[in-house]
Amino acid sequence: MIGKIHKQMSHDSWLFSKMATPEYTPFVFLLLLFQSSVWGFPVCQTPQESPTCGYKSCHATKPGMLNVHLVPHTHDDVGWLKTVDQYFYGDRNDIQHAGVQYILDSVVDQLLKNPDRRFIYVETAFFYRWWKQQTDDMQNTVKQLVNEGRLEFVNGGWCMSDEATTHYSAVIDQMTMGLRFLNDTFGHCGRPRVAWHIDPFGHAREHASMFAQMGYDGFFFGRLDYQDRNRRMVAREQEMLWRASESLTPPMADLFTGILPNGYNPPEGFCWDQSCDDPPIRDDPDLEDYNVDDVVTRFLHIAHGQALVYKTNHIIMTMGSDFQYENANLWYKNLDKLIRYVNQMQSNGSEVNVLYSTPSCYLQELHRANLTWPLKGDDFFPYADSAHDFWTGYFTSRPALKRYERISNSYLQTCKQLEVLGGPISRKGPFGAGDSETLKKAMAVAQHHDAVSGTEKQHVANDYARKLANGWAHCQVLVSNTLSSLSGSSAPRVYCEHLNISVCPLTETSKKFSVNVYNPLARPVSWPVRLPVNGTAYRISDAKGKAVDSQVVPVSQATAAVRRGRGYAVNELLFQVQAPPLGYSTYSVSLLQNGPPSPQSSPLPRAPKAVQNKFLRVTFDPETGLLSSLSNLETQQTVKLSQNFYWYNASDGNNSESIQMSGAYIFRPNTSTPFIISKTAKIETLQNSVVQEVRQWFSPWVSQVVRLYTDSRALELEWTVGPVPIGDDLGKEVISRLDSSINSSGVFYTDSNGREMLQRRKDYRPTWNLRQSEPIAGNYYPINSRAYIKDDKDQLTVVTDRSQGGGSIQDGSLEIMLHRRLLYDDVRGVGEPLNEMSDIYPEGLVVRGRHLLSLSPPATAADTHRPLAQEVVLQPLITFTDGELHPSTRLEFSGLQAVLPPAVHLLTVSQWDQDTVLLRLEHQYQASESKEHSQPVTVNLQKLFSTLDVLGVSEMNLSANQWKDEMTRLDWKAESGEKPLPKRGGDPSVWEVSLKPMEIRTFLLRVRQR
Amino acid sequence: MIGKIHKQMSHDSWLFSKMATPEYTPFVFLLLLFQSSVWGFPVCQTPQESPTCGYKSCHATKPGMLNVHLVPHTHDDVGWLKTVDQYFYGDRNDIQHAGVQYILDSVVDQLLKNPDRRFIYVETAFFYRWWKQQTDDMQNTVKQLVNEGRLEFVNGGWCMSDEATTHYSAVIDQMTMGLRFLNDTFGHCGRPRVAWHIDPFGHAREHASMFAQMGYDGFFFGRLDYQDRNRRMVAREQEMLWRASESLTPPMADLFTGILPNGYNPPEGFCWDQSCDDPPIRDDPDLEDYNVDDVVTRFLHIAHGQALVYKTNHIIMTMGSDFQYENANLWYKNLDKLIRYVNQMQSNGSEVNVLYSTPSCYLQELHRANLTWPLKGDDFFPYADSAHDFWTGYFTSRPALKRYERISNSYLQTCKQLEVLGGPISRKGPFGAGDSETLKKAMAVAQHHDAVSGTEKQHVANDYARKLANGWAHCQVLVSNTLSSLSGSSAPRVYCEHLNISVCPLTETSKKFSVNVYNPLARPVSWPVRLPVNGTAYRISDAKGKAVDSQVVPVSQATAAVRRGRGYAVNELLFQVQAPPLGYSTYSVSLLQNGPPSPQSSPLPRAPKAVQNKFLRVTFDPETGLLSSLSNLETQQTVKLSQNFYWYNASDGNNSESIQMSGAYIFRPNTSTPFIISKTAKIETLQNSVVQEVRQWFSPWVSQVVRLYTDSRALELEWTVGPVPIGDDLGKEVISRLDSSINSSGVFYTDSNGREMLQRRKDYRPTWNLRQSEPIAGNYYPINSRAYIKDDKDQLTVVTDRSQGGGSIQDGSLEIMLHRRLLYDDVRGVGEPLNEMSDIYPEGLVVRGRHLLSLSPPATAADTHRPLAQEVVLQPLITFTDGELHPSTRLEFSGLQAVLPPAVHLLTVSQWDQDTVLLRLEHQYQASESKEHSQPVTVNLQKLFSTLDVLGVSEMNLSANQWKDEMTRLDWKAESGEKPLPKRGGDPSVWEVSLKPMEIRTFLLRVRQR
Repeated sequence: MIGKIHKQMSHDSWLFSKMATPEYTPFVFLLLLFQSSVWGFPVCQTPQESPTCGYKSCHATKPGMLNVHLVPHTHDDVGWLKTVDQYFYGDRNDIQHAGVQYILDSVVDQLLKNPDRRFIYVETAFFYRWWKQQTDDMQNTVKQLVNEGRLEFVNGGWCMSDEATTHYSAVIDQMTMGLRFLNDTFGHCGRPRVAWHIDPFGHAREHASMFAQMGYDGFFFGRLDYQDRNRRMVAREQEMLWRASESLTPPMADLFTGILPNGYNPPEGFCWDQSCDDPPIRDDPDLEDYNVDDVVTRFLHIAHGQALVYKTNHIIMTMGSDFQYENANLWYKNLDKLIRYVNQMQSNGSEVNVLYSTPSCYLQELHRANLTWPLKGDDFFPYADSAHDFWTGYFTSRPALKRYERISNSYLQTCKQLEVLGGPISRKGPFGAGDSETLKKAMAVAQHHDAVSGTEKQHVANDYARKLANGWAHCQVLVSNTLSSLSGSSAPRVYCEHLNISVCPLTETSKKFSVNVYNPLARPVSWPVRLPVNGTAYRISDAKGKAVDSQVVPVSQATAAVRRGRGYAVNELLFQVQAPPLGYSTYSVSLLQNGPPSPQSSPLPRAPKAVQNKFLRVTFDPETGLLSSLSNLETQQTVKLSQNFYWYNASDGNNSESIQMSGAYIFRPNTSTPFIISKTAKIETLQNSVVQEVRQWFSPWVSQVVRLYTDSRALELEWTVGPVPIGDDLGKEVISRLDSSINSSGVFYTDSNGREMLQRRKDYRPTWNLRQSEPIAGNYYPINSRAYIKDDKDQLTVVTDRSQGGGSIQDGSLEIMLHRRLLYDDVRGVGEPLNEMSDIYPEGLVVRGRHLLSLSPPATAADTHRPLAQEVVLQPLITFTDGELHPSTRLEFSGLQAVLPPAVHLLTVSQWDQDTVLLRLEHQYQASESKEHSQPVTVNLQKLFSTLDVLGVSEMNLSANQWKDEMTRLDWKAESGEKPLPKRGGDPSVWEVSLKPMEIRTFLLRVRQR
Repeated sequence: MIGKIHKQMSHDSWLFSKMATPEYTPFVFLLLLFQSSVWGFPVCQTPQESPTCGYKSCHATKPGMLNVHLVPHTHDDVGWLKTVDQYFYGDRNDIQHAGVQYILDSVVDQLLKNPDRRFIYVETAFFYRWWKQQTDDMQNTVKQLVNEGRLEFVNGGWCMSDEATTHYSAVIDQMTMGLRFLNDTFGHCGRPRVAWHIDPFGHAREHASMFAQMGYDGFFFGRLDYQDRNRRMVAREQEMLWRASESLTPPMADLFTGILPNGYNPPEGFCWDQSCDDPPIRDDPDLEDYNVDDVVTRFLHIAHGQALVYKTNHIIMTMGSDFQYENANLWYKNLDKLIRYVNQMQSNGSEVNVLYSTPSCYLQELHRANLTWPLKGDDFFPYADSAHDFWTGYFTSRPALKRYERISNSYLQTCKQLEVLGGPISRKGPFGAGDSETLKKAMAVAQHHDAVSGTEKQHVANDYARKLANGWAHCQVLVSNTLSSLSGSSAPRVYCEHLNISVCPLTETSKKFSVNVYNPLARPVSWPVRLPVNGTAYRISDAKGKAVDSQVVPVSQATAAVRRGRGYAVNELLFQVQAPPLGYSTYSVSLLQNGPPSPQSSPLPRAPKAVQNKFLRVTFDPETGLLSSLSNLETQQTVKLSQNFYWYNASDGNNSESIQMSGAYIFRPNTSTPFIISKTAKIETLQNSVVQEVRQWFSPWVSQVVRLYTDSRALELEWTVGPVPIGDDLGKEVISRLDSSINSSGVFYTDSNGREMLQRRKDYRPTWNLRQSEPIAGNYYPINSRAYIKDDKDQLTVVTDRSQGGGSIQDGSLEIMLHRRLLYDDVRGVGEPLNEMSDIYPEGLVVRGRHLLSLSPPATAADTHRPLAQEVVLQPLITFTDGELHPSTRLEFSGLQAVLPPAVHLLTVSQWDQDTVLLRLEHQYQASESKEHSQPVTVNLQKLFSTLDVLGVSEMNLSANQWKDEMTRLDWKAESGEKPLPKRGGDPSVWEVSLKPMEIRTFLLRVRQR
């Protein structure tokens, strides 16, 4: 047999050293290959260089004293007021003075001037840009600094991701990319020990869980609710142990978490950046304004004050801020003096010791203190920095960008899968050079906390979208190459990215074309396809040549209204497709008939009493045209359910900066009662063998299709909102609200980054006694992929197609914010009102999206919403070829040998190096949420792929920058509860790996194309 | 005999190597001493280091191409919006971001990164501060950069002096101090080749003359009249030969002068400082916004355009500006790229060659071009940057500071003389440690073009004054030590700095005290003394015990009004004193009688018909109380002469920045007719044996004393102006105007920096066809020490006690601006209205000053005004000791063996090193201005001092940083006129040196105290 790849060398070497492969003779050759850079894990230093990085490189502290850890750092937004490349180069300094190339230039210079100095760097998107422009000499210099721990990477992902609106899969990808670059470049000395999310606006439990699984020893952040902070300061609970999963066995998701004392800024009066005006240390007695005594006195005062609100005799001070250290000399010259003069006071009896430090060095001292720490179980949402300043608007800000980011993730996963399945031809094939790298980087950048969050300037949002589009273009070449290779057809492949508004030039004109549906999931999917056409009847046959039921219906008025000349289809061709796991199926479409559609295909101008399929029944109020009930026909449960659209009037701050207004970050409605858009909807009903639609028209800028596909367990509400009118000078925050008979008792549930669910309770926080000051905004939470309300009997779950904000203000009610159009900036730096317009929508952006509703008993609800949400996250990729396919074309393909068990999600399939593939398997159910699925499950890695032989395997940490069995994290004791005994159930065999609820396992596979 | 010290070594060594002193045996020892730092001229490099600095270090240019000289530079104001030390440290960056310590740190770092890079540094006040904080290693590194010409000093004085309001003696001092520091530190590689006045607001001919005599090869500046510039651009006359003296034989005062293309800024779009927002060069094709082609195209366009307005195929671009290069990496990184990419275009046929350069390297190429250059004879005043924007306000701005600076110069010269005369005891004596260094530095800083110019912020003006006061305090110790040593009396010496407002605690209370009058001039002076007292009769005896006539008169109301509690004298004791050259005389004063003054000592409340002494007669209009005529009784000439006070209403810009307002820099009256303050004056007349005074009271804020001392050839007008009322919201610019019967035909004359006179003609400029747009402000010129109007018969000369602005708007009229109080900033950066107030004068500053009037035939006027002005510039120092002097006290002393000839002014007597003294002798008459005195004159250096043996002498250039006989300047050809043959009349002997009109000769004397 071909055994598991594992390492037997020292912890400092990243080599596959021994392979138990008696029957596989060429292995010696492969082994040599692996010792080069093929695996991307270079050896960090030669033996004669002692490894002084990491904890070993920390400066000594003084046990009897108050030790002040000064941490020089810069916070470099991967796009915000300027684009990421503008920030890198220091372009558009008229917008904001910031140039990362110069920061890194300067910091390296200054580190070289004094070996005591330390610096941390965080955002690999920037570091990577800088690194590749450096000479060999400079690269060697930097490696030396890293090896000596003078330059330390913390966090180390491509960006510092947003925590509310990012999906875990995209976060894992961007962290993996950043950390891999560090590993490839610096070896183990480049591996960050500390996660560092100093700026994100609230903190997700799932992020903490991921960081724990990525091997971080601790986590620091800067922003949390002001009430929470105040309580924690008094109680000295600003440092804690976060148990970040209810499913994973501790300490797997335990993460030591510290709250920084000044956000991420220096203490007042001690900012010596070129962007600051604090007095420098003037220590030349021959010149005027000698101020050493004053500086030392002020510093000691601040240090003693800070020590009062932390537990140990170590405190940390973040000496830096946004884009600081462009001229690092200013900082270091004064910090050198500060350290000298403050420590000189020790000879006069001062018991304060100041030192250059890093977050990991500070963390090490906290660990050495050997204390117990308070346990944290919930998350840090929502974030309020003052009584009326809840940062809950960005949960929804820029809904179009949020959707584009989400489908780009889907597209990237497909692209990466097809890169693996296609092999080398995918990157260089009949359609030219393609790659997944461009989209990987674009997606990684889009995870930044001012990117998908929607809190950037408009031109920067445009840039993120442009980057994604460029990534799509590169992936499209790759996809075409692979599909050409797998199908044996080199027919040009056409991509239609505007199917959501029924635009696709090929299907609008072609009389004969084929539709390829690629399914990135590890189980087969059935998927409704809706193509813009101008014919009235089409013949469709599936991969086996079997006819497929289809319908042609008129394009809705709402769709026609938003196309703006980008298509002229009058009809839509509807049919259901199936695709095998990790594979595709091909459908042939032929025009049968032109001319007007048959009258019975046209919608009827009235509400039906009900629409139903074999799973669901939906009733409507004939007076209003609104939903009135929802029934699950399998479980025979029914709830009253109405739905309508409202808007909150955004606070305009009365033109005063002292009164908070709604903005890109902050949601602040003027009143707690939203305005209804229309009490009634104009209705059209369309019913046929594929779909039943009730088209609701609430106003010229709000419409919806309530849609039930014939074999769907979910009711689709496709909403279209915009252009939001502002002629009345009122900013508007538009919600969709479901009001049900469910007795939810002030409780609802939201997911964290698309994974585990968290309970939310109105006007309540689990860890402190909340004084609620914003009855709406203070009850909003991020709805990343789903939310539900329930009582003993019924659970109504809404799956979203992007991140949104929402709340349950009344029992039985669930509201989700869809779109925001605001007239004022909210004074958090972005400096623009969130008022989206574009060339195509000059009167304001129109946004379309879907909510998928399911009704189930609470005990089985996950069985529906887990796969449902996954289908929304990883949707099929539909591509077209014009004309008749060559008969030899392979019309169906699956990359898997077999469907994976329902609990298992194929989270990552990605080419790592020439012969290696990164694989992540995920158990997609929480513990106890499904009787059927919340069970351990086993996958055989050798029986996974249909086209790849798996020759070796090695398990990695979640971010794939460390062997799993070398991941030894610092252990921390909680104040309450037993210290968990780390206990890992063994896998059945080297190849058969088991997954427990919510577990993600990461493997590097050595593969060979069959 | 003891011979002249001279050098015989190479031009690169600054040693006194050979002394022809057969009879002076200890000389070998002295010679060794001189080879160390005693002379302040270290060897610049060891022989194995080839001297590559200066012209030899310039990069090669390409003869067939347009060569663009990029000159990286920073312009560091020695105080402006912040104090000099705030600028140095980067303190108060809230006012202006600027930190010179960081600039020098950063530039040195960046120069080391690429040997092609160049930088020039200008202001030694800052460089000195930085240098003394550096480690030996850093100092050696910098020396290396200087030796290789990578760091080049230009200008090199302590500051970049103002040219309108500075006195030549203070300018020479500050240049000498800065250049000496460079010489001491770097040897000949630290000697600037180029003068660089890129910011001063107009350019004085005397400055050019001084720079020529200091050995500079050329001069560059940035600001000149916009009409002048336009004409010169068209005519390609932006580079010229300035013949800067009408007295000195060319080329002694010839200075090649270039006008920089963009002031001192980079061309538009090419500012890469951290303070700028121009796009950086983005040359990574993998990132967005690649712009190399755009940058190169824009640069070539600018270079070609610039070449059109200069003569050669070399152009200069100043790449820097105010306080730039704090983060030099931004500049250099982009300049490196610019040079690379622009020069890469040469392979595509581009004929533009870009290089790092310096002003001297550019100058060298101009010299190599071997062209003839237009000749310039006048000066560059006034400076206008637009039709209504004449920078003629600062000629008067901050009149109190201007006066304080001027008397501080007098005090410093006295202090330096007494340091030489007192020997080592002066610096460490019975009264402690004193020095002249502190006042030297304070004075040097005060010469800066935003210091004595009055164009700094109020807090900075306060700082300059504070620095001067501190310098006075240090000098006072020195003076006390020396006078104690010379007189043999260690009685505590008292200084009264407020005698001008009759405040002196000692004289107000003491019944017996002595008055020491030190005379810094080389000829005896007679000087009226006016002491605040409370007695009514005093007995005064001179150094020989002879009684001196004295008078006690009541303190005037005007003086009482401005004292503000700082003194309570009711009377003033008046008497005339004499003091020998470079020496003192002591007067004893004893109270005879208390009680009310005799009635006849009180002023009479009416105007006299006339007051007169043996030289002058002045008549008054009995109706108005104003002057009506002035007669010279010796020459029997009389002119009608009236005088009154007026104010111009300062333009307030109509609250719009587009309409120029009056401010610290700019004078712009709203109308051309000034408002009269009062047509009549209230009069008091006081006449006694010492003085005759007519006290005029025009308003509560304007008064004057017309004063004629018994043996004076000048009529004194002591004006007191302020607080200028602004209750009417009108800014006011107050003038004193003399209206005479002199037929001046639109012409008047002003001095340049206190030396040579320049003719001024109304609405006219000698070098271009003026379009006059400001009838008043456009006819104002700096009056540094004097101005006159004349016709064939009469010349009326006004000697001022400080720099002021003035003009002759009507024939026979001469107006001088005294005080300015403005309510608006003039938008040239200072950001404050010139609205001076203080704790003592919270309702606005009161200023007092003097105009000294003389009337003579034009041919002999200089015989009066030259010595008169000198007495104002170098006034006697009056000090006091309380009680009876010990009988052994030496009451009289002269440091000279004999009075110098009347044409000779002892400009500098200053300790240079332990045994050396810096001496400057000046011929104080212009050629042809005095039949009697405008003749060559000879001085014997050995017969100069009474207390010093002069053992050796060596002549230096004017700034004493080069041996005179090594001063070989680049020669330039003028377009018109013969190339002058340098011809120096030999001195009669080594010791007897001759002076021609306006010549200054600078010597280092080796001396021994007798």
